[in-house]
Amino acid sequence: MSFEPDVLQGFVQRYLDTVVSGSADDVAALYAEDATLEDPVGGGEVHIGRQAIAGFYKNVSGAEITTQLLSFRAGGSEAAFVFAITVGGAMKIEPIEVMTFNADGQITSMRAFWGPQDVTQL
Amino acid sequence: MSFEPDVLQGFVQRYLDTVVSGSADDVAALYAEDATLEDPVGGGEVHIGRQAIAGFYKNVSGAEITTQLLSFRAGGSEAAFVFAITVGGAMKIEPIEVMTFNADGQITSMRAFWGPQDVTQL
Repeated sequence: MSFEPDVLQGFVQRYLDTVVSGSADDVAALYAEDATLEDPVGGGEVHIGRQAIAGFYKNVSGAEITTQLLSFRAGGSEAAFVFAITVGGAMKIEPIEVMTFNADGQITSMRAFWGPQDVTQL
Repeated sequence: MSFEPDVLQGFVQRYLDTVVSGSADDVAALYAEDATLEDPVGGGEVHIGRQAIAGFYKNVSGAEITTQLLSFRAGGSEAAFVFAITVGGAMKIEPIEVMTFNADGQITSMRAFWGPQDVTQL
């Protein structure tokens, strides 16, 4: 299974837009029922299933968020990308993320690579 | 198992330096015996084992190569990074790669996300 790069980039942009303007449940609805989320990678916690994933996004909801896609690479049914996210106008993080998608375009896994050294206080 | 970000970045820089100045066998020697390599992701071919990996690098040896690390993110025992590689002064590719490492600092998997749209003719 494989998507055209433009289609994958559309999935990623929809995700980044929903993080800005949607609820935690809206973001979780972009994920497959049995999806996994690891953010940050190496942090020791993997969230499994849409309900756990909604819980993860609830932790950041409430703050004003902006997102910007900086670099995008397609790979079959996967995408790797660099993006910037600002939280409450107070800090900016620039992770590298890897996402996998199923045939319905749902996110089946998300892994975010970043650490304290990738956070800028604004 | 986890490495400090600086250590992981050192592993990645050593890899990029060896791609420039080493032989295919030198590069393969940075990989674990049972490592896997997928380049590009979604290309349908996964090279398994150090011998197959040496074969992959032999295909690009002979050309003059330059590499430059553009962005780096650490994640436990993994690294995600953006880099530029030029081949024979004729083309430049900017992949996003994800590498995993074992306790000895050997690469256990490498996955490179890029496609024709990420290649620039020089």
